[in-house]
Amino acid sequence: LVYSKLKSQLLQDPAFEFTDDSRQWVERMLDYNVPGGKLNRGLSVIDSYKLLKEGKELTEDEIFLACTLGWCIEWLQAYFLVLDDIMDNSHTRRGQPCWFRVPKVGLIAANDGILLRNHIPRILRRHFREKPYYVDLLDLFNEVEFQTASGQMIDLITTLEGEKDLSKYTMPLHHRIVQYKTAYYSFYLPVACALLMSGEKLDDHIHVKDILIEMGTYFQVQDDYLDCFGDPKVIGKIGTDIEDFKCSWLVVKALELANEEQKKLLYEYYGKPDPDSVAKVKELYQALDLQGVFEEYEKESYKKLISSIKDHPSKAVQAVLESFLEKIYKRQK
Amino acid sequence: LVYSKLKSQLLQDPAFEFTDDSRQWVERMLDYNVPGGKLNRGLSVIDSYKLLKEGKELTEDEIFLACTLGWCIEWLQAYFLVLDDIMDNSHTRRGQPCWFRVPKVGLIAANDGILLRNHIPRILRRHFREKPYYVDLLDLFNEVEFQTASGQMIDLITTLEGEKDLSKYTMPLHHRIVQYKTAYYSFYLPVACALLMSGEKLDDHIHVKDILIEMGTYFQVQDDYLDCFGDPKVIGKIGTDIEDFKCSWLVVKALELANEEQKKLLYEYYGKPDPDSVAKVKELYQALDLQGVFEEYEKESYKKLISSIKDHPSKAVQAVLESFLEKIYKRQK
Ligand SMILES: [Mg+2]
Ligand SMILES: [Mg+2]
Ligand SMILES: [Mg+2]
Ligand SMILES: [Mg+2]
Ligand SMILES: [Mg+2]
Ligand SMILES: [Mg+2]
Repeated sequence: LVYSKLKSQLLQDPAFEFTDDSRQWVERMLDYNVPGGKLNRGLSVIDSYKLLKEGKELTEDEIFLACTLGWCIEWLQAYFLVLDDIMDNSHTRRGQPCWFRVPKVGLIAANDGILLRNHIPRILRRHFREKPYYVDLLDLFNEVEFQTASGQMIDLITTLEGEKDLSKYTMPLHHRIVQYKTAYYSFYLPVACALLMSGEKLDDHIHVKDILIEMGTYFQVQDDYLDCFGDPKVIGKIGTDIEDFKCSWLVVKALELANEEQKKLLYEYYGKPDPDSVAKVKELYQALDLQGVFEEYEKESYKKLISSIKDHPSKAVQAVLESFLEKIYKRQK
Repeated sequence: LVYSKLKSQLLQDPAFEFTDDSRQWVERMLDYNVPGGKLNRGLSVIDSYKLLKEGKELTEDEIFLACTLGWCIEWLQAYFLVLDDIMDNSHTRRGQPCWFRVPKVGLIAANDGILLRNHIPRILRRHFREKPYYVDLLDLFNEVEFQTASGQMIDLITTLEGEKDLSKYTMPLHHRIVQYKTAYYSFYLPVACALLMSGEKLDDHIHVKDILIEMGTYFQVQDDYLDCFGDPKVIGKIGTDIEDFKCSWLVVKALELANEEQKKLLYEYYGKPDPDSVAKVKELYQALDLQGVFEEYEKESYKKLISSIKDHPSKAVQAVLESFLEKIYKRQK
């Protein structure tokens, strides 16, 4: 509902005179790419905002604005995914062909990605420009987008085709990629939006940011773990991180724990497409008990996160962070 | 000099922890793509700002800020060009291979384009966030980028591969593509930046915007004209608009003026790569006296622009617009 409204406003944007063809194109492009995800990020804005209001009833207007910010994050996500699929030469996304693989789209998808990105400030300007936190909202989206693109860059250049080199895969690098490429926009951004709407200044919440970044890192480690050890029926896809030579938490941990012989094995079989190679790597993961190591990591992360959260002076903020953490702790998908 | 300073600030941006590899990558990417153009757009900011100050000496700080905005426009241009070359599958740009064709770059170039785009708000925030016009600057760059991407979209979907259809090529469509794809960022944006720095509100200058958009359109018509009738030695490249099935002012005009037989000829030979087809189209352009038609258009445009400029109440603004116009009137390259 909010989505339809935002879409129709964009299709009537006075800053651009649409032709019929181009209006249709944008509408189809939006419907194909923006809704249809799990909407976790978008919904987090509303959940967080509710908790920050400490039980006070939200006005209709507040609900609309929080949903709008949620949708802006979904737009941002769509923008990243459209371009990421082009760069990764992927085939499917959310159970359908990637946008650039749709007939007649092709590399026009790159410009569509740009358009998705440009829709965000159009939406923000329309609905927030009179708000005292408007400029902070612009700065926030700009900063987070910059961080995500920077994280994407280190990811791309470390997995540069033809330079498969496991020795680059270390925990600090893994942490850096995950932090920038995923955690800022998926974890920090929704809560930061809710904080701004509540009249808070983000500079007063550096600690909240740090906790959310750690939570995002933990989330990605789970993702890496489930890619190999999760139930494909539950997670809805078959993991291919090993085949794809991904800088996964598992391979980095394996490299840390392996003896010389095991390292050799990893160097030989990691990133090969054939099932035998993949099986060899998985055996090694078992031999190193990475499942146990992961469970230990999960417990430890949870403990640390809970204790950081408890240190926070505001009960409302504690509630936001706890609710976020409970959503992801021990998730199976 | 200003460029080096901005670059080194970006490479030290505290919002992102660079690895050595990624810092090197960004530096090389910037040096390859950002300087090296004609800098027309960037220099226009400074020229315009000087004229708006009506002879008052600029402080060092003002010069630096005007140059910084000029560079932001060059960054924007670099971003558009990097992505446009990917989408057009181009080979060379400014006398060197397109960035995405440089070994090991490939589609990482798409993310590099995004990074270039993200550098702009980083630069603006660093140098302008305390200025009263900071938020207007953000809105301006956002709006102009949106318009450019929208213009690019109509360009891309009207020349969709496999749907070569001349009947779509009309003057209103040509005008719309040119206005959005080129005129806003090349003509309006530099002057708008200078106006903001001078403490003006852009809403008070709609008329200036309209004039600059008309000037940008006139500029692009010249570009289309020179592509066919200019001296390759002077313009530095051999035009290929006819081969490329471009929605050029010339073909649109030809379609307007042609009789049925001549139209058939255009439908048959326009957009074909072989020299004979191209020659047939050029002969037709001669037969329709498009050179004369263009000269008439040029004279008329100039007259109209001058008279719109004279209507403007401020002498300083008149000077800005006139100086812009004189730079491009009857240009040969
Ligand atoms: Mg991908
Ligand atoms: Mg990727
Ligand atoms: Mg994964
Ligand atoms: Mg091009
Ligand atoms: Mg193009
Ligand atoms: Mg041209």
